[in-house]
Amino acid sequence: MEYTKNFDIRNGRNLTMLVDFYELTMGNGYLQSSIGNKTAYFDMFFRRVPDGGGYCIMAGVQQIIEYLSTLKFSQEDIEYLRSKHTFSDEFLDYLKNFEFCCDVWAVPEGNPVFPNEPLVTVKGPAIQAQFIETMILLTINHQTLIATKANRICRAAEGRPVMEFGSRRAQGYDGAIYGARAAVIGGCNSTACTIAEQMFGIPAVGTMAHSWIQLFPTEYEAFEAWSEVYPDNCVLLVDTYNVLKSGLPNAIKIFNEVLLPKGYRPKGIRIDSGDITYLTKKCREILDEAGFDYVDIIISNSLDEFIIRDVLSQGAQVDALGVGERLITAKSEPVFGGVYKLAAVEDDFGNIIPKIKISENEEKITNPGFKKIYRIFDKVENKAIADLITLHDEVINENEPIEIFDPIYTWKKKRIKDYYIKELMVKIFDNGKLVYESPDVMDIKRIVEEETEKMWPEVLRFENPHNYYIDLSKDLWDLKQELLNKYSNNYEE
Amino acid sequence: MEYTKNFDIRNGRNLTMLVDFYELTMGNGYLQSSIGNKTAYFDMFFRRVPDGGGYCIMAGVQQIIEYLSTLKFSQEDIEYLRSKHTFSDEFLDYLKNFEFCCDVWAVPEGNPVFPNEPLVTVKGPAIQAQFIETMILLTINHQTLIATKANRICRAAEGRPVMEFGSRRAQGYDGAIYGARAAVIGGCNSTACTIAEQMFGIPAVGTMAHSWIQLFPTEYEAFEAWSEVYPDNCVLLVDTYNVLKSGLPNAIKIFNEVLLPKGYRPKGIRIDSGDITYLTKKCREILDEAGFDYVDIIISNSLDEFIIRDVLSQGAQVDALGVGERLITAKSEPVFGGVYKLAAVEDDFGNIIPKIKISENEEKITNPGFKKIYRIFDKVENKAIADLITLHDEVINENEPIEIFDPIYTWKKKRIKDYYIKELMVKIFDNGKLVYESPDVMDIKRIVEEETEKMWPEVLRFENPHNYYIDLSKDLWDLKQELLNKYSNNYEE
Repeated sequence: MEYTKNFDIRNGRNLTMLVDFYELTMGNGYLQSSIGNKTAYFDMFFRRVPDGGGYCIMAGVQQIIEYLSTLKFSQEDIEYLRSKHTFSDEFLDYLKNFEFCCDVWAVPEGNPVFPNEPLVTVKGPAIQAQFIETMILLTINHQTLIATKANRICRAAEGRPVMEFGSRRAQGYDGAIYGARAAVIGGCNSTACTIAEQMFGIPAVGTMAHSWIQLFPTEYEAFEAWSEVYPDNCVLLVDTYNVLKSGLPNAIKIFNEVLLPKGYRPKGIRIDSGDITYLTKKCREILDEAGFDYVDIIISNSLDEFIIRDVLSQGAQVDALGVGERLITAKSEPVFGGVYKLAAVEDDFGNIIPKIKISENEEKITNPGFKKIYRIFDKVENKAIADLITLHDEVINENEPIEIFDPIYTWKKKRIKDYYIKELMVKIFDNGKLVYESPDVMDIKRIVEEETEKMWPEVLRFENPHNYYIDLSKDLWDLKQELLNKYSNNYEE
Repeated sequence: MEYTKNFDIRNGRNLTMLVDFYELTMGNGYLQSSIGNKTAYFDMFFRRVPDGGGYCIMAGVQQIIEYLSTLKFSQEDIEYLRSKHTFSDEFLDYLKNFEFCCDVWAVPEGNPVFPNEPLVTVKGPAIQAQFIETMILLTINHQTLIATKANRICRAAEGRPVMEFGSRRAQGYDGAIYGARAAVIGGCNSTACTIAEQMFGIPAVGTMAHSWIQLFPTEYEAFEAWSEVYPDNCVLLVDTYNVLKSGLPNAIKIFNEVLLPKGYRPKGIRIDSGDITYLTKKCREILDEAGFDYVDIIISNSLDEFIIRDVLSQGAQVDALGVGERLITAKSEPVFGGVYKLAAVEDDFGNIIPKIKISENEEKITNPGFKKIYRIFDKVENKAIADLITLHDEVINENEPIEIFDPIYTWKKKRIKDYYIKELMVKIFDNGKLVYESPDVMDIKRIVEEETEKMWPEVLRFENPHNYYIDLSKDLWDLKQELLNKYSNNYEE
């Protein structure tokens, strides 16, 4: 690709005001109550993997960076807020002179991530850390959802190229654009979304729709015209009328009568309807007999990981796949339930006071305190064994064995030797200043390949995957119990 | 609202390149094959109502207008396309000098719409009518999906105000922004999405999150601080620790000790977790006993039309509702399957040649030709009886009875007297020029209320609604049979 990708297309928009109104009412309240500048710590995390999968693929950090780098209230925004008769002049002045000054850590895009570990941690004045809640959630929830779904679909395709075709059924323009980005991160080879190539340098592809065929008097003439315009990249859509009686015979005729005589190599046929298993087997047979065993069969009809596994297990003859609405909306589970919770607040002397959100539903209880995550790898196998969430100042000595334990069944312990560790979150903003360079999308795609390679096959499994260990350090576990006991004493039945 | 709404926020973006790549390869091919300027007719329609409902709510026309009014390829776009080594100079020149010149008809936003009738019809040069396919589908699919879902949710709420709270779980930024627009069109009273108020003049609302409570030493102090900042609009979130043992008693204390003495009227409590039916009943009882029968109970925990109907039928005491992820993603059915199909093409003498897309699946066979839709209303009851799809030049004489018939069981006939008709589609572009003024969102919301009022309750039902009649005129039916017979003769088994 010679073209230089261009992020400017998005920058026309100022998304500062894409904020839940209560973040503004709270911000105003914090300021009025003199806690606006108290240092707060928030964690963004999720509680379960969609579709019963074993892991998610982190995505969206680049867009968080673009958002946080361009936070700015226009005069118009201020006047709009003033017109609500809800906010103090002091708060409006604060917004007018808003200067982002938080520290932000995030798991870099492309890494496998797991429930209950922070994907993003924000440390900063309560008023600011609260304000960015909606955009952090919206961005990471969306792209991680689609990257995770794409990764499932591409694994089901077992190495065959998967093209993202879903723009027309996406939920809004960004659903299409950033959805295409996330789909390629998750594993797709290309997208039909042209603007996504301009913005992110991911390959845009496409051939013809049924309307091309219908606009010509006959299917043969439509194919003929196409093969004359695109002789060196000729993929023909063969299901407008009847695949086996019309589409395929006409395609073979074009291959023999137009392309070969001119020295061009036919590329493929596409089937967009009907019984994929039966039709692709038949087409493969007929193509092979006609001497076109090198011509690809591409399928593209309401596919997802479940259907792809099904037709492949039945012996469908497929070389590439176009996947649309079920990928771009993550149809089988279209909500990624990331949350953004207060984890700690500093007192007037700079001490970090951990905070916990309790719930009658144990799974909704948060991990308190300012934390970090270590991913522990087996040195011999080079496979990830566990993620260990610790307090921010805990250090692991890699030369000594480490003991991890199940945070609920604490007698379940595991002593690990011969390991190496990686700190999972990296700092992306320091006191409001960007200190991280996001990789290109195609590089993030490679990170996905490398890092999922380091997961045991049991974790990658579709059905009932092994629950990867997400453990708490002893210090963090103790702190959590202490806070739980404190609350249970205050609110006992 | 004093603030003047502002569409400019969006206009920084040029979405011309949000197009499926095959629309470009086809466009280039049309031009090379000398059919780029042939006049083609395309229909956008859908085949079934999501969630088994009886109708959909049309939405998104304003955004179609903004898109079509600003279609323009930048020099950068042209250079990017040139770098693909796929397109002829002639085609790139065409794009460089692109001037939109299609006629476009659409059903105005807010109208109930039904399967298989055109929601949008485009007439124009094949190259242009094909090019705008993705954006028309993406826009109408998304907003119609969310408006329809919101309408279901608001009907389930039986007149109680519903607030749209879903931004953080939307699929991308536009999923949040235009999702909020569509939600209000469908029936929501307000949104948490602040930028949506700026852009569309729909009310933005919000109070506090759990983090507000947690940032103070005690729940009581958090409530006290809030009531001092917002004494005249005090809604307290009562489920951070324990609704009945802590949240509600603290709220009542604040009402009695802070608000009433200062002459303010407490406004409400919000419950975001736990057993809604039990908790709201208990809270209502306790509030009433404490003299606060006027204080609203607001609920907001993973709600949709199914849960709302369930808790209300169990006697939950609810005054208003906040609805999040299940509305903003239409979680139970997140894909609106609108399609864009060729309906006709003009020959060199200006004759309209109807086109049909056949399929082994009867439901996927299209209605051929250049068409329009009449909605037929009962004059006495002022209720809609049927939609009649006709060829574009058919005229109905309202002074004479009209006979409609089922397009499959043609012996099922109905003779209608005392009716009036409305043409459903209106022209929005004439030869590329905008000829329609879109109503404000709050006016579109009123159209929804008025037009659903004209539907029989049987059509509005949640479960197994009556199938509203979508019939073809005799002429259109005859034309369709003729084309089907022609194809079946060509491709018989």
